[in-house]
Amino acid sequence: MIDQKPLILITNDDGIFSKGIHSLYEVAKAFGEVVVVAPDSPQSGMGHAITINHPLRLDKSSIFPGTKAYSCTGTPVDCVKLGIYEVLNRKPDLIISGVNHGANTATNVLYSGTMSAAVEGAMEGIPSIGFSLCDFDLDADFSVAMIVAEKLIQKALKDGMPKGVCLNVNVPEIKEEDYKGIRVCKGAHSFWEDRFDKRNDQFGKPYYWLTGDFLDEDIGKDTDLHWIDKGYATIVPIKFDMTAYQVMNELENWNI
Amino acid sequence: MIDQKPLILITNDDGIFSKGIHSLYEVAKAFGEVVVVAPDSPQSGMGHAITINHPLRLDKSSIFPGTKAYSCTGTPVDCVKLGIYEVLNRKPDLIISGVNHGANTATNVLYSGTMSAAVEGAMEGIPSIGFSLCDFDLDADFSVAMIVAEKLIQKALKDGMPKGVCLNVNVPEIKEEDYKGIRVCKGAHSFWEDRFDKRNDQFGKPYYWLTGDFLDEDIGKDTDLHWIDKGYATIVPIKFDMTAYQVMNELENWNI
Repeated sequence: MIDQKPLILITNDDGIFSKGIHSLYEVAKAFGEVVVVAPDSPQSGMGHAITINHPLRLDKSSIFPGTKAYSCTGTPVDCVKLGIYEVLNRKPDLIISGVNHGANTATNVLYSGTMSAAVEGAMEGIPSIGFSLCDFDLDADFSVAMIVAEKLIQKALKDGMPKGVCLNVNVPEIKEEDYKGIRVCKGAHSFWEDRFDKRNDQFGKPYYWLTGDFLDEDIGKDTDLHWIDKGYATIVPIKFDMTAYQVMNELENWNI
Repeated sequence: MIDQKPLILITNDDGIFSKGIHSLYEVAKAFGEVVVVAPDSPQSGMGHAITINHPLRLDKSSIFPGTKAYSCTGTPVDCVKLGIYEVLNRKPDLIISGVNHGANTATNVLYSGTMSAAVEGAMEGIPSIGFSLCDFDLDADFSVAMIVAEKLIQKALKDGMPKGVCLNVNVPEIKEEDYKGIRVCKGAHSFWEDRFDKRNDQFGKPYYWLTGDFLDEDIGKDTDLHWIDKGYATIVPIKFDMTAYQVMNELENWNI
């Protein structure tokens, strides 16, 4: 038996040129063979979208020196699928996504391309982690995120991960000396209060920008929003099975 | 108190011109005031994507005679958000999405624009149902789907729906006389075995089409795939909270 180095697939949703993915790469490369397949342009908010109505391109990239890397015209989930089925010649031991520029706490998991890439990895039976830093700045400071990523990559490669589950890791916007540690918790039941910014174009025809405020309505003390606010990084286990088992009995009594 | 007719918002992911949404409209209009906000082009596979990096357009459409209808340049989830926050002047009593041309059984919920529109409705606290017919044909026969939709729209408007949950309804490709009824069940743990069809363009540069087979690996007898195969329509309750509560204790023992 050949003792192979762990194979780690990295992707993200901010695109292959973002600071976040380069920070994650810097941490991951110490743990094994790293391959990068990431979008060629920002894919924030793409959720679990896949590209089925037009073909995808996959271009070799040299921006990670000495490392096999590709930019892809598709979504983060497309990148995971292409990574597994076209780029790699064996199943990766770990998929890591991010580090996202901006929080993916609470219900934002559903909209997040970063997290959807990790969910896709879990569906493939591969230990997968999505990392997000609660700072949208293009030049954000990823120092704490790199400390957290190092711990979790090491742990996941050593002990694997529960089946059918990936991890949603959020890191507060905080200095290293103020960082408190890691908490396992649930995703807050908090939502966007959406608005549309309606403007008129040069012909007087309206167009709409999605905007709004994120409302922390969940008063629970065991949520990601709660612990992020206290200076902790958070781990929320995320499952791909969305069946609401707890209401099945109620629906069976509908007699339809 | 004014006795208002129920307000029903209709969307889909196949676009405003598809046969499926017109079938759903034919059923729904008997139950109240219907408003349509649907994509101007096919959005299959868009999952829970939202449009944040460019603006959206919303154009009045006259293809549903006597009915307020808009085509939108965005995704199904964009349509729900625009419907609620820009088009309607009160919260709808029901959101219905579909009828999709093609199954959204098992784990396909995650990739489905049809179902993501319903999940978005549930996040807004609005009873929401996604309907899919297990037939991709553009000219598919929606007769059985219309029977199922009629029953469920009536029930949801009368009694509401469990909180935090929407319904994923799939209808078999079957003749009316062979249709067996409706089953409440779980989504099968079945997955795509993805492949990419790699071709070369006119310059010899490769491009990739996502393809593959859907594998029914779940041998359970209480899954949507099982009952569809037996000639039943299926209802799977879907929740937006993806936290995997059952593994939280295990993760807390990670000592990281």
